[in-house]
Amino acid sequence: MTGPASVGFAAVVDATRSPHARLRPLSVPAVRLEGEFWGPRLARNAEVSLPTQWEQLESSGCLDNFRRVAGTVDRPHRGFMFADTDLYKWIEAVSWELSRGPRPALEERLEQGLALIEGAQQPDGYLDTYYALERAGARFTDLRDMHELYCLGHLVQAAVAHHRATGSERLLAVARRFADLVCAVFGPAESGRRVGLDGHQEVELALVELARETGEARYLEQARFFLEARGHGLLDGGFYGREYYQDHQPFRALELLAGHAVRALYYSAGLADLYLETGDPSLLQTLTRLFDRMTSRQLYVTGGLGSRHEGEALGADFELPNARAYTETCAAIGSMMWCHRMLAATAEPRYADLLEHTLYNALLPGWSLDGQGYFYVNPLQDGGTHRRQPWHRCACCPPNVARTLASLSGYAYGATADALHVHLYAQGSARLELAGRPVELVQRTRYPWDGRVELEVNGEGDFGLFLRIPGWVQTRPQLSVNGQAAEVAATPGTYVELRRRWRRGDRVELLLDMPVRALASHPHLLENTGRVALMRGPLLYCLEGQDHPAHALLDLELDLRQPVRAEWQPTLLGGVVVLRGRAEGCEPEEAWRGALYRPASAPSADRGAPVELTAVPYFAWANRAAGPMQVWLRARLGP
Amino acid sequence: MTGPASVGFAAVVDATRSPHARLRPLSVPAVRLEGEFWGPRLARNAEVSLPTQWEQLESSGCLDNFRRVAGTVDRPHRGFMFADTDLYKWIEAVSWELSRGPRPALEERLEQGLALIEGAQQPDGYLDTYYALERAGARFTDLRDMHELYCLGHLVQAAVAHHRATGSERLLAVARRFADLVCAVFGPAESGRRVGLDGHQEVELALVELARETGEARYLEQARFFLEARGHGLLDGGFYGREYYQDHQPFRALELLAGHAVRALYYSAGLADLYLETGDPSLLQTLTRLFDRMTSRQLYVTGGLGSRHEGEALGADFELPNARAYTETCAAIGSMMWCHRMLAATAEPRYADLLEHTLYNALLPGWSLDGQGYFYVNPLQDGGTHRRQPWHRCACCPPNVARTLASLSGYAYGATADALHVHLYAQGSARLELAGRPVELVQRTRYPWDGRVELEVNGEGDFGLFLRIPGWVQTRPQLSVNGQAAEVAATPGTYVELRRRWRRGDRVELLLDMPVRALASHPHLLENTGRVALMRGPLLYCLEGQDHPAHALLDLELDLRQPVRAEWQPTLLGGVVVLRGRAEGCEPEEAWRGALYRPASAPSADRGAPVELTAVPYFAWANRAAGPMQVWLRARLGP
Repeated sequence: MTGPASVGFAAVVDATRSPHARLRPLSVPAVRLEGEFWGPRLARNAEVSLPTQWEQLESSGCLDNFRRVAGTVDRPHRGFMFADTDLYKWIEAVSWELSRGPRPALEERLEQGLALIEGAQQPDGYLDTYYALERAGARFTDLRDMHELYCLGHLVQAAVAHHRATGSERLLAVARRFADLVCAVFGPAESGRRVGLDGHQEVELALVELARETGEARYLEQARFFLEARGHGLLDGGFYGREYYQDHQPFRALELLAGHAVRALYYSAGLADLYLETGDPSLLQTLTRLFDRMTSRQLYVTGGLGSRHEGEALGADFELPNARAYTETCAAIGSMMWCHRMLAATAEPRYADLLEHTLYNALLPGWSLDGQGYFYVNPLQDGGTHRRQPWHRCACCPPNVARTLASLSGYAYGATADALHVHLYAQGSARLELAGRPVELVQRTRYPWDGRVELEVNGEGDFGLFLRIPGWVQTRPQLSVNGQAAEVAATPGTYVELRRRWRRGDRVELLLDMPVRALASHPHLLENTGRVALMRGPLLYCLEGQDHPAHALLDLELDLRQPVRAEWQPTLLGGVVVLRGRAEGCEPEEAWRGALYRPASAPSADRGAPVELTAVPYFAWANRAAGPMQVWLRARLGP
Repeated sequence: MTGPASVGFAAVVDATRSPHARLRPLSVPAVRLEGEFWGPRLARNAEVSLPTQWEQLESSGCLDNFRRVAGTVDRPHRGFMFADTDLYKWIEAVSWELSRGPRPALEERLEQGLALIEGAQQPDGYLDTYYALERAGARFTDLRDMHELYCLGHLVQAAVAHHRATGSERLLAVARRFADLVCAVFGPAESGRRVGLDGHQEVELALVELARETGEARYLEQARFFLEARGHGLLDGGFYGREYYQDHQPFRALELLAGHAVRALYYSAGLADLYLETGDPSLLQTLTRLFDRMTSRQLYVTGGLGSRHEGEALGADFELPNARAYTETCAAIGSMMWCHRMLAATAEPRYADLLEHTLYNALLPGWSLDGQGYFYVNPLQDGGTHRRQPWHRCACCPPNVARTLASLSGYAYGATADALHVHLYAQGSARLELAGRPVELVQRTRYPWDGRVELEVNGEGDFGLFLRIPGWVQTRPQLSVNGQAAEVAATPGTYVELRRRWRRGDRVELLLDMPVRALASHPHLLENTGRVALMRGPLLYCLEGQDHPAHALLDLELDLRQPVRAEWQPTLLGGVVVLRGRAEGCEPEEAWRGALYRPASAPSADRGAPVELTAVPYFAWANRAAGPMQVWLRARLGP
């Protein structure tokens, strides 16, 4: 296998030559994420999740669908019409893994996968196992609902990752042939091609990446065509209407993101990609406006997005039900993809803040601690029936989790010619060139469990080190260089800049205080009235029933006049910091039993017996016996 | 036309001979509902709603679908596959109207409608304009989703109403031919017929009524077959799964009503009908248990049912979102149908309580004050975009409202051989035989605006008069006979019994106090935490934006330490009692602008300026200019 050093810039998004990128993400293999938090998790992704997902690709019929087209298996197509993308995302994940070094067991399967894909491609480049054989005549007849270009998009993403990670042109050649066919068929009316649009965005961002990888601007033009064609009613009809597909208004006219959440977020990521290449200010302006509206009105405290089971949709302002939250794991990934591109485009720390928050509190909960179970839907309150599954009938999430974790190191840093931005704190290291010289930055930290971060600079030169001071920080962080307090303003929600002539072995120490924080919701988010969500550092917490067997979680009232303590529990849930507080069990009074409505009366002064309350990180919920869970806790604030 | 006196017992549900009925509903023409509340409304239904609905039947294609089958119109079928039922429900409504006396304009259209139906029936009795001509071969191939037996059910209900109201056999003959075909095709496996089941309940209750109307027990047997076949997975698959169709568990095993709300409620009504005929105690036991669960966990304060847009479904316990309430108008009607049958089966006042509550607060809101607009969905909070429509693409609700209002008088009273139960208070009169002698009961009242009800007994004899003391009554009602206080316990939530030898002209006076009531929700209904809903008598109230133009309704905090006054407004919204109280405009503080979550802090002691608050009956909302509305109001209870 070709080693990573000999190949191109293996970044999740290669903005190295994007004219409007303010930050260039470091490449996946250039960054190592290690330590007690990420070390075992990322190893588990490679060693448990990816092998067991391969078994699911086999048993679900995904691989057989390819064999069927090649004529080596004789059985009907199985699964959804977009099941091919399960393999593509798996290959993307494996490619990122391989960029870090050999993984023989995965490579053998990867070879099988590549051969299957090659064997299913049609002579003209078309590749979609659903529309093969008996359905071949129906190609491109239902772009709105049948996901053919969505499949192309994931094929391209896999091919680009495989090429970046290994240098192999093999999958890229397949992807280009299909992309070239699509480019020949679809285009603006004046070109004489067909004006068409996929109902599920994905091909757009993939084509921008294909342009970056091949240097061929026509793929960027194709992406721009698909992005600009949207919003003019081409996708009319359908069960949920045009909003579902974000086809109800041209992008620049949107007041808020609406409709299917994953579609909306992949769309936004694609538009951010288009901005990185074109610099069209109306794109960035619109994306910023939609991001602001989303974070101030449509975002769960988990970072999850998508309030409605109906149409897997984003909700209206303040429509954020807890038990019926949809918050698909793929939507969290879509949000991270968008944030990653906005960070490259703007270098604004709020995008890194949401990226980190989403990673810990919306992506990670979708993945079980044993690496073999996945949530599709991520509620913030549950009675104990919602459990992770080894695979789903619509299996978009599991390999999406795998590819995101496999490429996570590529989200951690951004660089300019003479500065490095640290977006994510995690034990590990990063290698890059700064001001023309190689530099290694080593992080030593127990983050997210602890806010102390030691950075060691192994390199020389004049460059800037930008450290992210998360927006959640409440007290001014301590920051020192070689033991001397740094004379800079480390303001929460900014990057603090350390610019100097660095010498090998320089040490930076950042101390982020991590008190327990109780967050309240905007008063118009009615369901959380009188309730708080507990956070510590970047982590959101929740209650689980088994830590409070005698009580209904909804009725436990946290007493915030007393301290809530953080406590390291090395054997619980793989090692977590739990929060312990004092609560009162305010069970609904006898008068409520059987009644849903009754005359209002002032709250009783009677309080229940004190209860020791234990909160665990939300990402770790549902990893023990089934039981109720909730994020928002009744709280007593005043006297 | 044959007058009502010459025909049978024209009740909405004819339980006259049902062996297990404890109460026999009075017939539609035997009861007159008049006075300032119901008089104009019921006239408007006959004079405005039914004629304009006929125009919609024409313009929507419903009538042309029938003409198409008869060969007099050459155009494709339009609308949903169950659009025939729009005409059937309209005919049912018109039939009830005709039972009260001639309506030449409606009769002419009715004749047209009957001819259209006759002309579309196939030689073997089959009747469904969707499965005619080119689709005739696909009959009964998709019972789960295509509503053929649902269409039969509404045809039977129309035919039964038409027969009861007019004595004409014309539509009944058509309905019987189709019913006979269905009885020949479907049945228990041991009969050699096909075991099949419609995905949307309706035919079951209709067949029980057909058995009552024709005296043929085989229709009852057919209803029993359809009811008992459900819950065994015959309707497997489908987008929403078996629960949607209530086919996930046999009825007697259900812990709660779930899935599509209208289906669930029509199902329950059918099962109650089966109980009325068979007396199977397991049916009544199950129905009672499900009713209790529904009213204590799944019922909106409006009486509306159905919490989810997804699958138009009932929700889980305490899942009752306000802005996203679904509460289809047809579900309110289904609930009234079920209550009406449970009342016949048990004579228990709680069914009358919910029936009345649903009528005023869940059915009536679905109908505009001008009689020409309908809600399908009935939210309890809205930003001002939800408006009634003259018709819907899925037009089940408008003619369902019309038939329910046209037959409303049949819901008002129940009788035994020697007693009359008054379920609904309304100006008007009722005629019946009691203890073998004709009796007329005259009601004089301004109810629901006022709780004073005068009853005049025009008849002689020993019989009981049972007056419903609604569950909402808080102080002991005053009750007198001929000016003398009655020595009986008029306990809220019971029928108070007056049994004596009545003489012509006896006068009963009942005085129900109607103070303004502020209701709170069970604490597990999180969205209503700290909020109250205002009621007076049977009416629920809401705030509308135009009465409080300077404030966000969500932020107005009603001060319940001060009185809330009721005030008659003769020109507002056709004449309503409004409620006036004092509130404070607690706008979200500046700190919230743009933030969705922030550190919790004790509520500020600062209060906004006092605001005069005006609440209007919920049934009358959205009849003025568009604007926000909400039912649940922030409230200050304590000091």
